[in-house]
Amino acid sequence: MRRVYLDNLATTQPAEEVYLAMLPYLRENFGNALSPYELGTISREAIEATREEVAKLINASPKEVIFTSGGTESNNFALRGLAYANRKKGNHIIVSTVEHHSITNPARILEKEGFEVTFLPVDKHGVIDLNFLERALRGETVLVSIQLANPEVGTIQPIKEVVRLAKKVGTLVHTDAVAGIPQMKVDVEELGVDALSLSAHLFYGPKGAGALYVRKGTRIQPLIYGGIQEGGRRGGTEDVPAIVGMGVAAKLLRENLVSLVSKMKPLRDKLIKGLMERIPHIHLTGHPEERLPGHASFIVEFVEGEAMLLMLAFKGIYVSSGSTCTSKALKASPVLSSMGLPPHLIQGSILFVLSKDTEEEDIDYVLNTMPEVVEKLRELSPFKEGWKDMEKWEESTCPHH
Amino acid sequence: MRRVYLDNLATTQPAEEVYLAMLPYLRENFGNALSPYELGTISREAIEATREEVAKLINASPKEVIFTSGGTESNNFALRGLAYANRKKGNHIIVSTVEHHSITNPARILEKEGFEVTFLPVDKHGVIDLNFLERALRGETVLVSIQLANPEVGTIQPIKEVVRLAKKVGTLVHTDAVAGIPQMKVDVEELGVDALSLSAHLFYGPKGAGALYVRKGTRIQPLIYGGIQEGGRRGGTEDVPAIVGMGVAAKLLRENLVSLVSKMKPLRDKLIKGLMERIPHIHLTGHPEERLPGHASFIVEFVEGEAMLLMLAFKGIYVSSGSTCTSKALKASPVLSSMGLPPHLIQGSILFVLSKDTEEEDIDYVLNTMPEVVEKLRELSPFKEGWKDMEKWEESTCPHH
Repeated sequence: MRRVYLDNLATTQPAEEVYLAMLPYLRENFGNALSPYELGTISREAIEATREEVAKLINASPKEVIFTSGGTESNNFALRGLAYANRKKGNHIIVSTVEHHSITNPARILEKEGFEVTFLPVDKHGVIDLNFLERALRGETVLVSIQLANPEVGTIQPIKEVVRLAKKVGTLVHTDAVAGIPQMKVDVEELGVDALSLSAHLFYGPKGAGALYVRKGTRIQPLIYGGIQEGGRRGGTEDVPAIVGMGVAAKLLRENLVSLVSKMKPLRDKLIKGLMERIPHIHLTGHPEERLPGHASFIVEFVEGEAMLLMLAFKGIYVSSGSTCTSKALKASPVLSSMGLPPHLIQGSILFVLSKDTEEEDIDYVLNTMPEVVEKLRELSPFKEGWKDMEKWEESTCPHH
Repeated sequence: MRRVYLDNLATTQPAEEVYLAMLPYLRENFGNALSPYELGTISREAIEATREEVAKLINASPKEVIFTSGGTESNNFALRGLAYANRKKGNHIIVSTVEHHSITNPARILEKEGFEVTFLPVDKHGVIDLNFLERALRGETVLVSIQLANPEVGTIQPIKEVVRLAKKVGTLVHTDAVAGIPQMKVDVEELGVDALSLSAHLFYGPKGAGALYVRKGTRIQPLIYGGIQEGGRRGGTEDVPAIVGMGVAAKLLRENLVSLVSKMKPLRDKLIKGLMERIPHIHLTGHPEERLPGHASFIVEFVEGEAMLLMLAFKGIYVSSGSTCTSKALKASPVLSSMGLPPHLIQGSILFVLSKDTEEEDIDYVLNTMPEVVEKLRELSPFKEGWKDMEKWEESTCPHH
């Protein structure tokens, strides 16, 4: 059976080059990067080589790159670290309602700690409301944090506009680029952001490595205090193998992004077109054009996302559902809710995220497989007759809540 | 040339079994542990298997084990997380002056944020003052954090006594067991602690993996917010390979600790005895008996630790110096300062930490090599004649400060 992995914003398979580069650092070159003898300097040099690669990837200077354990830590670090270090300016911060949990959850904690937090609404395509933002920004606004692209619906946010508005009142801008980096050219100078999060395991690097770009001269308070690692901004013995892997992944991505995107986009377009043609009552979510080139997300009516996901996995197709049952933590996806979708539709959400390795045959396989999966699920559904009774439908299709 | 690595509290070489166990998870089994299909459940099961192993190692229940990116994160998490989650009780915390930076630095931040922090003094062997602790503890004391063993001088702290005193006033006790775990039987029930930090890369596991034990029923606030990973207590996609490696390392340590210690201790004793006999003006630091069985730390007078370290590395012997120049961040080791040692002596600190792989030949090689290294350095020293002029000596031997 064909195996088609299209869950590349859950995680990606590390590139072979990444894997091979990591191996020597897992056992042979095990030195602590702070040790002054050779075993330590081997690690130190490997870390600094990655810092250069990550900097190059986003057109930053190496000194502006702080390594973390991943995107979630980077986001927590950015939000708390920038808010507290610049609190003299004020105590107001702005985040969007469609941010990742690693932004919205720390934002709620900041709220409890005395910050005023504005949650910026989005339109039906998931695009932030720039007029709302302009009205919300004021002298006391310390920080705006808006994602570069939404992982769940693929929508790309107008970050340059965010920066333009924020700069009028001297507000710092952080962008969570975790979902954007793997499929977009990202240039911190062009964007004008003050801070940016990224995560290696979403661009064919290893888990356990991420970075926070912090523009030179921008004050930030550490989240994890320890020794002198990362210039005192992030303590803890560096995870050298993971950092080495991130460096190789960053280099590969920089070198291959253009060809990767030009290969990915037509395949993604074929997938969207094909599914819309073959499956009745299916709706694209997110922005139709301003979206990640390898991202296709849908609402499939009268089907429960989790069931669809598991049946597709049974056929060798691996995808995510943004719905309740997948995330377990949430009543309904706050991203889709923010976009105005009612809970009974949110249940049927599904997303396909292509990778550098996705081939046309993979897309064809999905197009041939998915319609019958949906049809079967709709046939099997005990709500076949009564699906208009949305209340009942919602309660019953997700029994483990 | 023989290579003798005796810097095993800087980091250890991962065991071959650890390395081999990690390999499949670096590329083949790359699934996100939250994904409900097989690729995800493989990761999930690997993580939960490690949780059981780590729990067994410290006699905890798996649900009491939270994975982190390492010891530094665990310590930050414990200190802030326990202090804030239990602030209703009061705003006083107690840490010792010889804690790792990942405790003392967050403690200073908590102080800035309104907590009252008592820094508990130690005696000349680095043992905390229990009488001082008893007087310092009061109803408002939320948390006491005392290390199990000191990484720099090897001294084992009387944690059971700390717990006994703390429990009288209902105070939580955290212990940083990062240095202790690799060389001591650790049983959270026997110790009676409420929280305990450990780090995989110090017990022949990989970098990038650590854990915080939190006793059932103990409230803790997350440090890193994100999704539902680790029961909502630590967000972020799990670093599966590193966690897998930690599990294997925990199992190996549990199975081999007794034989490891019984092999290590006589070698360490031979090292101490041999160096004290062969080198004049050398002093053991830390407690003579109540110390880690594989830990030997000294002050070598009239020698600068950094120079000693580099010359030993040149001879294939890898060790640490607790002195200024090594750590770069600090004027003088706060551990040795707390023990009452003057700066000019602290400069000459050196520590040898044995591993499971240390052989008698390694110790013999150190005993044969180190005396001439010290002698040569003393000969070369421009302060040969004037070393009694301590002020001058201190300023001049560490020029990059």
